[in-house]
Amino acid sequence: MTESLEARRARLMGPNVPTFYRRPVHIVRGQGVWLWDKAGKRYVDCYNNVAHVGHCHPRVVEAIARQAAVLNTHTRYHHDLVLDYIERLVATLGHDVRQAIMVCTGSEANDLALRMAQAVTGKTGIIATDATYHGNTAAVSQLSTRRPPIGGRAPHVRLVPSPETLAPLGGSAEAQPAAFAAHVAAAIADLEAAGFGFSGLMLCPVFANEGLPAIAPGFLDLAVEVVRRAGGLILCDEVQPGFGRVGSHFWGHDWLGFAPDVVTIGKPMANGHPVAACLARPEVMAAFREAFGYFNTFGGNPVSAAACLATLDVIEDEGLQARGAATSANLLERLGALRHGRIENVRGVGMFFGVEFGGDGAGDFAADLVEDMVARGFLLNRIGRGGATLKIRPPMVFGQAEADLLADALQAALDAA
Amino acid sequence: MTESLEARRARLMGPNVPTFYRRPVHIVRGQGVWLWDKAGKRYVDCYNNVAHVGHCHPRVVEAIARQAAVLNTHTRYHHDLVLDYIERLVATLGHDVRQAIMVCTGSEANDLALRMAQAVTGKTGIIATDATYHGNTAAVSQLSTRRPPIGGRAPHVRLVPSPETLAPLGGSAEAQPAAFAAHVAAAIADLEAAGFGFSGLMLCPVFANEGLPAIAPGFLDLAVEVVRRAGGLILCDEVQPGFGRVGSHFWGHDWLGFAPDVVTIGKPMANGHPVAACLARPEVMAAFREAFGYFNTFGGNPVSAAACLATLDVIEDEGLQARGAATSANLLERLGALRHGRIENVRGVGMFFGVEFGGDGAGDFAADLVEDMVARGFLLNRIGRGGATLKIRPPMVFGQAEADLLADALQAALDAA
Repeated sequence: MTESLEARRARLMGPNVPTFYRRPVHIVRGQGVWLWDKAGKRYVDCYNNVAHVGHCHPRVVEAIARQAAVLNTHTRYHHDLVLDYIERLVATLGHDVRQAIMVCTGSEANDLALRMAQAVTGKTGIIATDATYHGNTAAVSQLSTRRPPIGGRAPHVRLVPSPETLAPLGGSAEAQPAAFAAHVAAAIADLEAAGFGFSGLMLCPVFANEGLPAIAPGFLDLAVEVVRRAGGLILCDEVQPGFGRVGSHFWGHDWLGFAPDVVTIGKPMANGHPVAACLARPEVMAAFREAFGYFNTFGGNPVSAAACLATLDVIEDEGLQARGAATSANLLERLGALRHGRIENVRGVGMFFGVEFGGDGAGDFAADLVEDMVARGFLLNRIGRGGATLKIRPPMVFGQAEADLLADALQAALDAA
Repeated sequence: MTESLEARRARLMGPNVPTFYRRPVHIVRGQGVWLWDKAGKRYVDCYNNVAHVGHCHPRVVEAIARQAAVLNTHTRYHHDLVLDYIERLVATLGHDVRQAIMVCTGSEANDLALRMAQAVTGKTGIIATDATYHGNTAAVSQLSTRRPPIGGRAPHVRLVPSPETLAPLGGSAEAQPAAFAAHVAAAIADLEAAGFGFSGLMLCPVFANEGLPAIAPGFLDLAVEVVRRAGGLILCDEVQPGFGRVGSHFWGHDWLGFAPDVVTIGKPMANGHPVAACLARPEVMAAFREAFGYFNTFGGNPVSAAACLATLDVIEDEGLQARGAATSANLLERLGALRHGRIENVRGVGMFFGVEFGGDGAGDFAADLVEDMVARGFLLNRIGRGGATLKIRPPMVFGQAEADLLADALQAALDAA
């Protein structure tokens, strides 16, 4: 008797290892926005932000292959590529965040960001939203409600209500920015009263894991002011919005209109090669570097740097940010024209879209729709409270043709639902 | 005026970024045991355990290039390669540790190991040695004396005296195993009295960062018994000794003769590609997986799995463990024949060697020797308390010819010292 893949995974990886979809897809090949499963069925990838410039982009593949054959070692020796990359990377930031520590995962980057806030302020209290996810180290998992930390949440963490589209904080979209800032202020006061003090606020500027709520530039101005006044740092998790995904800007915080103290990046940075980084203002970096002798064996190795440089080259040479902005406008129009009684809101920021459903069992409705779309050859997923929002976040090379295919298929699936 | 590389690094990476050697080496190319700097000078790499099967091994490079061109995605889709790899990996372990979580760095692996111990025992107290380093996440850095954590050490950590060669615990080499176990027992009692309870003991089975003390198989038997009796887990950090480096065995704990509950691996696993893993007994994995919904975006992706498989293929097909054992015996004999009044001890376990110096200023003497060896074209470094021990830990393809070159150069450097 043949062992099923599910059984083999459980035998080798243990129980409760997450997969997407009720019947997990067995992917064997990728190219651009397309993925193929073992049976040869083709899917439009409407979800994977890691393959930012398209699955298996030949320039990134070639850069990795070329450098891996020449040298792959660590930053305790000098090498040019890691410096070339950091120089180009920080040039995309229009403010004082201009130094970087190269690491291997977004979790490692956020783990560093938390300690940078601690090193600068001498305090430990940290604030995040109550529907977020910033990574999975022991320290960073303290900020997650979806994956509560082992042993319970540490006492120095406060989770504030996240912005919402259908039930905005303060009762209206207009009141929401001030209501969010008030929650942050209350959490700071609480941390100070508890003796931890306040080190920083960590957030994703598009609130991606919170369900991509409909917010506008300026949304965080009041909260940022509250944080600054209290002497805390703004730790900006750009893992999802960064590298042009928001379309109008290269970074999510540029779109929203604030300058963070620390910026963390990961997933799309080298199109799937394991690399991430924690960027900071020089004073913040110095405070951390003087307090802690950090070294990451794999971080910033020449192969990772080459993969990062090639990814940046492709983003620029293929004009992916502008192309994404154009596709975004078109797809948002198509999604806005979808017809179904359960659709309560359609929203998007660049190449990141949410279609939120309402009514009893909206989460189950969205779940069934996701499965139907997989059967139709479209990979996407759900997000937000109750999982009632379709999450569409394709590689940046997703173009008008694929947007039309997706919108047509979605309407067909909604008609059949 | 041209900016120096040092100044450029400081500008882009911040202050206090570690480099090797007083005049850092600018490496541009690697092949096998050889590295070349920008000026074309060639070095024998006597230090880098990451390039386990030799710098830029063509089979590993080819595996990475081939798979990167076909598919690189995450384990929320099914894929065969990650399962093929875990299956082959756990087959090298002759005991009940037979499930794995794939991650990207040894730090991530050890961060998981700590939480596995916590999930199994419901306790938080953890023990390590007082001269160790297991990684750099916020949680794992709690175990380090060389890089004390920001904000001071957490109260649930106890650091016990590490084994030594020249000044063994208990006063003699014979008394040392019992003395080490007694320190562990006292630390457990202390953690229980403090209310944290005892979750586990984390250690490297060759005590690599502690200076590779001269210990023999069976050294840990008493300490392991103490840990088991107290209901704690043995968390075995195999990042340095694993994958055949100890020569006589594939794993350090096999050489020492005990079966851990958790095994962590990293650096040499894919010859420099960023990948690591945390392996555990099924009950331990289940306790963790049920307590925490862990997912690592890059961990176990098909490219990483292909690189891991190719590295394992090379280790097996080129017989690197046996070759290492043969080179080890020869090099140990050559190192033992070195003549200098300051040499107090020469020791080795497989392809890992220490030459310990004594007398006033032994650390400075070793430091000067390292610099002289770099000038002579040999990359190595120092380890242990006071940095008085030369650390020689070359790629596994380091053979008799290189061993002779190294021993000759070391004698010349000692003669000139």
